[in-house]
Amino acid sequence: MDALNDARSTAPGRFEGGAAFCEGRYVPLSEAKISLFDWGFTRSDATYDVASTWQGAFFRLDDHLDRFFASLGKLRMTIPYSRAQVRQILHGCVRAGGLKDAYVAMVCTRGVPPRGARDPRLAENRFYAYALPFVWIAPRDKQLAGIDMHISERLRIPAASVDPTVKNYHWLDLVQSMFEAYDRGRDTSCVVDERGNITEGPGFNIFVVRGGVVRTPDRGVLEGISRRTVIELCDRLGIPLRQEPVPVADVLAADEVFLSSTGGGVLPIAKVNGQPLRLAHPGPTTTRLYDAYWAMHDEPAYRDPVEYTP
Amino acid sequence: MDALNDARSTAPGRFEGGAAFCEGRYVPLSEAKISLFDWGFTRSDATYDVASTWQGAFFRLDDHLDRFFASLGKLRMTIPYSRAQVRQILHGCVRAGGLKDAYVAMVCTRGVPPRGARDPRLAENRFYAYALPFVWIAPRDKQLAGIDMHISERLRIPAASVDPTVKNYHWLDLVQSMFEAYDRGRDTSCVVDERGNITEGPGFNIFVVRGGVVRTPDRGVLEGISRRTVIELCDRLGIPLRQEPVPVADVLAADEVFLSSTGGGVLPIAKVNGQPLRLAHPGPTTTRLYDAYWAMHDEPAYRDPVEYTP
Repeated sequence: MDALNDARSTAPGRFEGGAAFCEGRYVPLSEAKISLFDWGFTRSDATYDVASTWQGAFFRLDDHLDRFFASLGKLRMTIPYSRAQVRQILHGCVRAGGLKDAYVAMVCTRGVPPRGARDPRLAENRFYAYALPFVWIAPRDKQLAGIDMHISERLRIPAASVDPTVKNYHWLDLVQSMFEAYDRGRDTSCVVDERGNITEGPGFNIFVVRGGVVRTPDRGVLEGISRRTVIELCDRLGIPLRQEPVPVADVLAADEVFLSSTGGGVLPIAKVNGQPLRLAHPGPTTTRLYDAYWAMHDEPAYRDPVEYTP
Repeated sequence: MDALNDARSTAPGRFEGGAAFCEGRYVPLSEAKISLFDWGFTRSDATYDVASTWQGAFFRLDDHLDRFFASLGKLRMTIPYSRAQVRQILHGCVRAGGLKDAYVAMVCTRGVPPRGARDPRLAENRFYAYALPFVWIAPRDKQLAGIDMHISERLRIPAASVDPTVKNYHWLDLVQSMFEAYDRGRDTSCVVDERGNITEGPGFNIFVVRGGVVRTPDRGVLEGISRRTVIELCDRLGIPLRQEPVPVADVLAADEVFLSSTGGGVLPIAKVNGQPLRLAHPGPTTTRLYDAYWAMHDEPAYRDPVEYTP
């Protein structure tokens, strides 16, 4: 366990600008690679989770670790590190990367198959982690100017194909929706289900507000930790919230729309499909939740200060 | 162009057992890696194609190149190599790998994003290729003993989410079906669509025969080159063939079932869900197509002999 956390390999700022943990050791980002033959690449047979640090502390790291280990179980993957060791590795990446506000990923791939094999039970699963400077779902200037979200007609990969509660890299549907958005000069995108309800976008959940009531899709989406935070904050603040199917028409007719993501928390949307929403952004409910989201980062129960001294 | 094919970097058998082409140069398989940050991994934003060589010659390489370049276009990817150069690189991999019967892959990934970027248009796409010893969909002993195919109730990712005619790595649905199959002692698996028709399996298309008529799914599947070969051979041999939805019940009640794949050509199935088919394997229609498939490898129009001397 000490090797994961020893003073030399994770010296503060050893790999200034970010660090990774690959094949059992800490490396600079430029050396963070996986085999071209890893089923994690050639079958996208992998799961991951992304936590963040803000002003030198992880936010809700326990919840991210819970979900990551749950995803491993659902995909029948095992890693040679305990939960406590994964936590140590993540702290080590942030420390070695010399970061205060960081995007911190943990990844497990099925691994490289034995020669000629096709049985996923035969591969040795691989664990990777890395810390990068914080990545925003939308850059700060766009957040101020007002994010325009494109609603694509493309279907999110259904739960009957790939379980969305296992955080996964099956993103080609989302990537195609991003092309549509950027080609139209919009800032981000989301996709729908076969009944015409919105689902999620690349890396975020979606909330709509109308008449003071908040709604978010209840199925076919990742159960985001930031989504959960918003749901809990609505409860705390006495804001009515419903988890239920949300038709596209209700997004277009909303007073307010906002996103939730580890990559930026509560992010107000100004326009949908190029059209302004009923209320100017950020609307009052979004603002309350935005403020509460960031205030929650100071609560000791959700903070895990980075161990900057190994 | 000469650098892709020069005598030193692709000397015959230089990397005995297989060779790869990564970041513009030939390397042994152990050095074939991609960045952990390549969107080809973190978004499965990639396409690929697999050709084969048999007894020292590529089979239908032009068709694989056609499909690969068509997939690149559909995903809006570009590579810095012409079709003729990709062909040269593939020959170089087989030669340097010292292989006669080879599995030969060409891959394009979206690439590593500029720091903090999310727009897929901003990445520089990356090209990779490699040659490995021929990989069979099922090992030879299993082919002789009789392959047992499991039909999973899991849905293939629908075309409205991810275009199946773009050969892609979105395989978690197939991987889950493989677990189901292996756990039941079966040899391979396939998945279905939402109407209860079969679609495809991990790396192959499916054909059923009843009363001398061959049928194969017409939608929601990869348009395999081996599938096309079977369709063309049916035409040549006067075997009636229909491309149409094929319900699961028709697979269970078939006289014969066979698979088509670059990883083994025409592969007879002996059992479905543990139950023997109506005719003992390999049945007469499967046998005719099996023989015709391998005979076709000798036709000059489909052969591209490996350039074993650079």
